[in-house]
Amino acid sequence: MSPQIFRHASHNIKLSVAPKRSYAKVVNAPAAQKLKVNADRLCRRSVETQWHHLGQDGRDWFKDQVQSLGAKTYTVNKTGSQFATFDGENSGLPPIAMGSYLDSVATGGKFDGPLGVIGALEAFKSMKEHGIKTYAPIALINWTNEEGARFFPPLGSSVVYAGEKDVSAAFQSKANDGSGETTGAALESIGYVGDGPNTFQEWPISAHFEIHVEQQRRLEEAGKSVGWVEGWQGIDYYEMTFTGVDGHANTYDMRGRRDSLIGASNVMLDLQHLALAHGGITTVTNIQSGPIGACNIQSWTKVVFCVANVSNERLAAMGQEILARAEAEAKQSGLGYSVENVIDFPAGKFWPEAVDCVRRACGDRGIGADTWTVHDSSMTTRLCPTAMVFARAKDGVSHNPKEWTSKEDCAESALVLGRAVLNYDQLLREKSA
Amino acid sequence: MSPQIFRHASHNIKLSVAPKRSYAKVVNAPAAQKLKVNADRLCRRSVETQWHHLGQDGRDWFKDQVQSLGAKTYTVNKTGSQFATFDGENSGLPPIAMGSYLDSVATGGKFDGPLGVIGALEAFKSMKEHGIKTYAPIALINWTNEEGARFFPPLGSSVVYAGEKDVSAAFQSKANDGSGETTGAALESIGYVGDGPNTFQEWPISAHFEIHVEQQRRLEEAGKSVGWVEGWQGIDYYEMTFTGVDGHANTYDMRGRRDSLIGASNVMLDLQHLALAHGGITTVTNIQSGPIGACNIQSWTKVVFCVANVSNERLAAMGQEILARAEAEAKQSGLGYSVENVIDFPAGKFWPEAVDCVRRACGDRGIGADTWTVHDSSMTTRLCPTAMVFARAKDGVSHNPKEWTSKEDCAESALVLGRAVLNYDQLLREKSA
Repeated sequence: MSPQIFRHASHNIKLSVAPKRSYAKVVNAPAAQKLKVNADRLCRRSVETQWHHLGQDGRDWFKDQVQSLGAKTYTVNKTGSQFATFDGENSGLPPIAMGSYLDSVATGGKFDGPLGVIGALEAFKSMKEHGIKTYAPIALINWTNEEGARFFPPLGSSVVYAGEKDVSAAFQSKANDGSGETTGAALESIGYVGDGPNTFQEWPISAHFEIHVEQQRRLEEAGKSVGWVEGWQGIDYYEMTFTGVDGHANTYDMRGRRDSLIGASNVMLDLQHLALAHGGITTVTNIQSGPIGACNIQSWTKVVFCVANVSNERLAAMGQEILARAEAEAKQSGLGYSVENVIDFPAGKFWPEAVDCVRRACGDRGIGADTWTVHDSSMTTRLCPTAMVFARAKDGVSHNPKEWTSKEDCAESALVLGRAVLNYDQLLREKSA
Repeated sequence: MSPQIFRHASHNIKLSVAPKRSYAKVVNAPAAQKLKVNADRLCRRSVETQWHHLGQDGRDWFKDQVQSLGAKTYTVNKTGSQFATFDGENSGLPPIAMGSYLDSVATGGKFDGPLGVIGALEAFKSMKEHGIKTYAPIALINWTNEEGARFFPPLGSSVVYAGEKDVSAAFQSKANDGSGETTGAALESIGYVGDGPNTFQEWPISAHFEIHVEQQRRLEEAGKSVGWVEGWQGIDYYEMTFTGVDGHANTYDMRGRRDSLIGASNVMLDLQHLALAHGGITTVTNIQSGPIGACNIQSWTKVVFCVANVSNERLAAMGQEILARAEAEAKQSGLGYSVENVIDFPAGKFWPEAVDCVRRACGDRGIGADTWTVHDSSMTTRLCPTAMVFARAKDGVSHNPKEWTSKEDCAESALVLGRAVLNYDQLLREKSA
């Protein structure tokens, strides 16, 4: 895994101060008020298809869609992300982007990721159908490998866009399964390595808006279809390696052993208690152990886990406590121990002016919420005004085939996305005037 | 993994009653008394080479050796085992075999396995050099995949020889790493799939003798070079699968989760305590968990572990208790649970008349001992008189590059092997007379 790609990310985050105005009195931009979306068209696609991670089908479909909508430019970049642009009145401005991803996790449903792209396409089609011409150009984006499902790290393409990782490193990033396969090879095999722009510097956008299913229950509990996302909780990933001593599984006295898997098991259980004690979350997302064989004491075990907390202070405390615990366990069990903080993604807030555009679009059908994970928008927010729209998710389930968002909520989220973009477009128009 | 390949194995074991005679007064056969071995020649090979599991080099070397010794027959069978025979006075008798294996585990040393074959070659060469002509023919055997290091199960070829597994199933047995590679494909790639005999029925032997390093400290503690092996402890392997519920690693509330890896961790730790409480041994030899990805709660975890005990009653009790514990853990954690007893190998004793041949050959340089694991001899003993010679192993270390047996002890074990064979040969001669 690539070291420290998100480390010190907090230093780069541009936090704006919330504007001191009464939200209640602000309404949507005139164009936003006019927008409607086609729920049937939107949901036909959402429920028909599940695209596989780094698969060709979804990308081909996206390409067809944006080309048939008359995209002015369509490009694919080195990490397979697809960018399409459409003219606005002022073609000198960078486009307002609506972006998300079609790649889903292997065990995922049809909404986590795809709804963001399908909803963006629906919002844009509806603008055209309602004769709405934006001031700024519009961009539609299908980001690659947001999930990190097959290849590490997550946000595999937007991390390059944000200048946090070199494009060659992202291209060569390795498969999580230890097979040695690379993102680049997988993209080449489906014909999706292009020469389009890789970074914000090469291809700036004015703002980035994204729909995502909530993945929690706050909208459901509040009886709301949608939400404006104010920020995200902090997430750290650690890769711990315990090394023991090789020996015969049947003959070696248990009392003298240095079994790395047993040490790791102790730490994996301790993790659970520590995370709960700190009001946070932890998950062991990957374990590999060896030597592979029928008769070997395990002499190396690698464990990758995340810890997450809405508070950066508590996140840091969780990490310190867990690392201290792991080190003590290793010492007590006579194991070698190393740890790498492979992702350090502090909690942060989206841009208030962008969040406000979403909030006004939600109106009383929405509430404010934080996301408990990170998204491509958590990368673009380092560069330009960014905000997200949440769509209500049944039982908060995601990364599971049971993931579900109703037709009405999908449509509502697409409408909010379109209105938020039009609200932001209005800000740009006013700023230029 | 193949189900139940060794299950009910105990029903097939032919146990003989120990002969009622005074061991102390019995000496070696005249030919055995005459035998010496060449320690330098033997140990040059032992310390020079480590052969890799299912590798070509060791097999080529064995073939050259037996052919240059003038083998009457040399064959390779479907699972890659090499059999060579040499005439005795009575060519109508099945040969007395000296067999072991050159395949080592990936993390192994140069003695566990190879010493058995190199020692057998040395013993046979020395017989020739000392003008000793046996009554029965002699066979030299290099068994395939005793360790189960790359392919499951262990004793991968002798299990076929003993009629416990079909040769096609053994040929198609899968790699432990989940790659889907098969024993057959690996053997084909090195040119070691032959049409030689696969079973005892096709190619019977009169007896089987084998040198193995002890893998424990009893010889060392007793200050003895060698040992006669009286039996082996019982070993069961279980493959447990826990199934949970897929979900997002960062967003899903920890309290509602069904995380298969956490359930498995609890059971892996319980295993340690239960095994110690029963005076037995346990090792988790393999863990695999998924889905593979950066953001997934683990929804399936497979754990393969062995339990071993010198007492079959305690072995059964350990198994029952562990399975009950795992089932309770699964229930408590809301996990699906299944278990398969993939190897059921009860403790047993070698043939007293064969053990006696080894014991006489050891004289006062040896002690009696049990092996704590199973060997190809644990398969041949189901078919014909079988016994083993232990060579003292430094610190009881095996499956580790630090594995070590001194030159003197290697030579002593080869001498004991040769003498034991000659003692047994004398029994056959007397029986025929």
